[in-house]
Amino acid sequence: MNHRFVIRQLGLLMIVLSLSILAVAAWSAVEYLLLGDASEAVSMQALLLTVATGLVVALICWFSSRQADDFLGRREALLLVALSWLGGAALSAMPFWLWAVLENFYHPGADGDDPHPFLLFVNCYFEAMSGLTTTGASVLSDIEAMPKGLLLWRAMTQWLGGLGIVVLFVAVLPTLGVGGKKLFQVEAPGPTSQGVRPRIRETARVLWMIYVGLTAAQIIALKLCGMNWFDSVCHTLATLATGGFSTRNTSVGAYDSLSIEVVLIVFMVLAGANFGVYYQLIQRRFRSVWGDPELRLYLGVLLVGSVIVSVSLIEHPMVGMTGEARESSVSESVRHGVFQVVSLQTTTGFCSADFENWKFTAKAVLVAIMFIGASAGSTGGGIKVIRCLITAKVMLAEVERVFRPNVVRKIKVGKMTVDPELRQGTLVYVLGIFSLFLIGSVLLMLLEPAGNITFGTAATACVATLNNIGPGLELVGATQNYGWLSPASKVVLSVLMALGRLEVYAIFVLFVPRFWHGE
Amino acid sequence: MNHRFVIRQLGLLMIVLSLSILAVAAWSAVEYLLLGDASEAVSMQALLLTVATGLVVALICWFSSRQADDFLGRREALLLVALSWLGGAALSAMPFWLWAVLENFYHPGADGDDPHPFLLFVNCYFEAMSGLTTTGASVLSDIEAMPKGLLLWRAMTQWLGGLGIVVLFVAVLPTLGVGGKKLFQVEAPGPTSQGVRPRIRETARVLWMIYVGLTAAQIIALKLCGMNWFDSVCHTLATLATGGFSTRNTSVGAYDSLSIEVVLIVFMVLAGANFGVYYQLIQRRFRSVWGDPELRLYLGVLLVGSVIVSVSLIEHPMVGMTGEARESSVSESVRHGVFQVVSLQTTTGFCSADFENWKFTAKAVLVAIMFIGASAGSTGGGIKVIRCLITAKVMLAEVERVFRPNVVRKIKVGKMTVDPELRQGTLVYVLGIFSLFLIGSVLLMLLEPAGNITFGTAATACVATLNNIGPGLELVGATQNYGWLSPASKVVLSVLMALGRLEVYAIFVLFVPRFWHGE
Repeated sequence: MNHRFVIRQLGLLMIVLSLSILAVAAWSAVEYLLLGDASEAVSMQALLLTVATGLVVALICWFSSRQADDFLGRREALLLVALSWLGGAALSAMPFWLWAVLENFYHPGADGDDPHPFLLFVNCYFEAMSGLTTTGASVLSDIEAMPKGLLLWRAMTQWLGGLGIVVLFVAVLPTLGVGGKKLFQVEAPGPTSQGVRPRIRETARVLWMIYVGLTAAQIIALKLCGMNWFDSVCHTLATLATGGFSTRNTSVGAYDSLSIEVVLIVFMVLAGANFGVYYQLIQRRFRSVWGDPELRLYLGVLLVGSVIVSVSLIEHPMVGMTGEARESSVSESVRHGVFQVVSLQTTTGFCSADFENWKFTAKAVLVAIMFIGASAGSTGGGIKVIRCLITAKVMLAEVERVFRPNVVRKIKVGKMTVDPELRQGTLVYVLGIFSLFLIGSVLLMLLEPAGNITFGTAATACVATLNNIGPGLELVGATQNYGWLSPASKVVLSVLMALGRLEVYAIFVLFVPRFWHGE
Repeated sequence: MNHRFVIRQLGLLMIVLSLSILAVAAWSAVEYLLLGDASEAVSMQALLLTVATGLVVALICWFSSRQADDFLGRREALLLVALSWLGGAALSAMPFWLWAVLENFYHPGADGDDPHPFLLFVNCYFEAMSGLTTTGASVLSDIEAMPKGLLLWRAMTQWLGGLGIVVLFVAVLPTLGVGGKKLFQVEAPGPTSQGVRPRIRETARVLWMIYVGLTAAQIIALKLCGMNWFDSVCHTLATLATGGFSTRNTSVGAYDSLSIEVVLIVFMVLAGANFGVYYQLIQRRFRSVWGDPELRLYLGVLLVGSVIVSVSLIEHPMVGMTGEARESSVSESVRHGVFQVVSLQTTTGFCSADFENWKFTAKAVLVAIMFIGASAGSTGGGIKVIRCLITAKVMLAEVERVFRPNVVRKIKVGKMTVDPELRQGTLVYVLGIFSLFLIGSVLLMLLEPAGNITFGTAATACVATLNNIGPGLELVGATQNYGWLSPASKVVLSVLMALGRLEVYAIFVLFVPRFWHGE
């Protein structure tokens, strides 16, 4: 294992994160110095202190790995990805924590009996991991009380996590060289045969440009719908990453604007599709896009889910995000039905209405699509549409094998034949997700004091973190947050978020003794 | 498809069932005519009427299939097994239904506002399917009010279902000939490489003898512990089939006898082991038994489960089957902890205490072992220990493949190498069970009137029927029954029982159009 090279790359990551934080600090400084928003002073200090810390850590990494060979094997790539997320979350959590500590220093006792959640580092780590993994689960109950600098950083963690900090590495920094392709496999794995060309660095650069282009387009679109610039930027960063952090306590419900919701729906759907599709569109390979089986199924599931949920909501009393009763009409049913299905299947997690009181049918569909998730090669999470497709085909083939054991049929997805290795890998992945979901739910039940949690809460908290969605049901529902959970539970959920974002293996191998031994 | 031969074999099944019912009617007649138990009169009539019906159906089957070829292909075997259970349950349900109808005819209005559940045929079908599949879920709230004839028939359905009516076919009836081995594969499938010899008819006869021998031994053991003959017989039939029907409203808790519970524990463990083990013991292949990985893991899981549950019960208030508070001591914790773990993992479903109020830890273990289930080649249900073992090994191997893609390791269970086909088949089976569990739970929630059922109830009802256990949690818990569910839900659960007992495929293929077409 070439530890030194991994450490050097981590140093680079720290620099990239520090520079991102510096950009956020600049916005904070503008708000404070030019616009005279005094509440930004502390957030600016916290951000700048973090930048300093990050640069010091980067320097240490750099000096301790001067003689590193430029060799990135498979195991090194896995370790680098895992440490990028685990370590990146630690640095990303620092602005939150420093802000709370400084606030407490300047204004001791201002919070009264209810200390700010960010005074506990585990809460900050949970929030940062939730951001980087594009989950969107929050420990905050009063988001609007936070300074803008921190809210922007919160949204920025999602955007950075979105297409993968490491893809940024591959696209921008040339040092990785040979390891690039291996990294990309870990970063955006899954059965993505199409659209991703062997010349990985070039591809990554194009994907990154698409990401930036979509970001610019959405910021303008939201601004045109009446959002202010700050909210437009933050919601855009959270949308394209399928993250779901909002700047408002009642999420998207706060705007109560159909046009904003339509813009969000469009960009959530775009963010949940395989980015290789846009690459193909740029190359004018329209026929290939049209025939893409994952894209078709992804849109199909969104459509069917939306229809079922919308129909189930007709005549059902509709409740807004602040608990207010809303008019219940067919158009309202369709509006919130479609929005919530798109938000949860793309694993974004914005909320336009409180779905806690919806019918069982609607909630069952929502939980089911949470597991299905977005497309492979998108910024979204979940099992991924194409894995569900392969699993379904393998299961049906197995049924036929029982009564016609001698008939061998190829299993195809589009033009790609699913070889036995991929079949087994997919089945194991799906079983692994269910196992982690069950293990997580049981752990939460055991870690929380008796009577503090329901099984429905524990289970949906795990669904919502493992699949990188955000809101679950019951005590972690649309209008709730994760702040009340015990620190131990938050650690479990943070691990689930990282497992889900890195598609299990990159984190899981760290616990396998054989991973650390051998050549 | 050779329909005629299938129909002829179904006719034979009807004859075997009718003769079994005749034997039960004889007991009923002895109770009525010799011992003067007047309440047996109606049950005797119901049983005899069923015998007549069964024989008429058998005659029709026989005459409509006179020119059948003696050919049993794989598809015919699957169809025969599916129809044996679906049709067998219909005939087995008749005594219950006829008894209720006759009682209602002789004593109209005796039940007042609360008509007997058996007046509805779907309830009788549920009870019969629960018996034949060795599940043990009941629609009855007052079991002790039933006549002995019906209670004996109820237990007998389990015993017949236990080793498989069809194995009885293979062992006793020579007509099947060439098809025998195929049938046995469907009947007791799973990865049973050991113990079952190619000379299937001979093996089936030996297994049957073992079954009968164990039955005799347990009846005597229970009698020695103070049970009366009738209860001994009924509980023995229900134990060796890992069925779990009791003759008492409060199941095994009614006796409150440590010695009876110990006898039941021993025979439940025996019934949940691969019967091939006993075959090997008879052949004095002790080393082979000692090295059997499934046997070791089966006993290991029982042991670990018992320890966890027992420890979690220490200092926990213990509640008996009638809701009475019981002394809470270490010995009581161990006694009920071990009994319940053995009862639920072997998928028997007897209850010695009300585990509804146990800690979450205990209930989580109980639900987990319900899924794991007994050994392949036993009378028990569940996923089966060996499938769990293979799945775990495949999943671990897959993790290593991520960081060492070129290292190919054989996956072995004992001396058997798990080939890729078996791996895929096992993974699909486990995923299939989870899928059916989820689909069933959602269906139940949709079929029951709103507010009538909790998700915990729906989910554990599906766990308990799909894995052929009997009691679940909450509204279908240890002291509850399934009578209150809607008829539609009972149909769903009956299908789940059949799916679980026949290891999914035999029932599932009936819905596959391709199964019915072609050569």
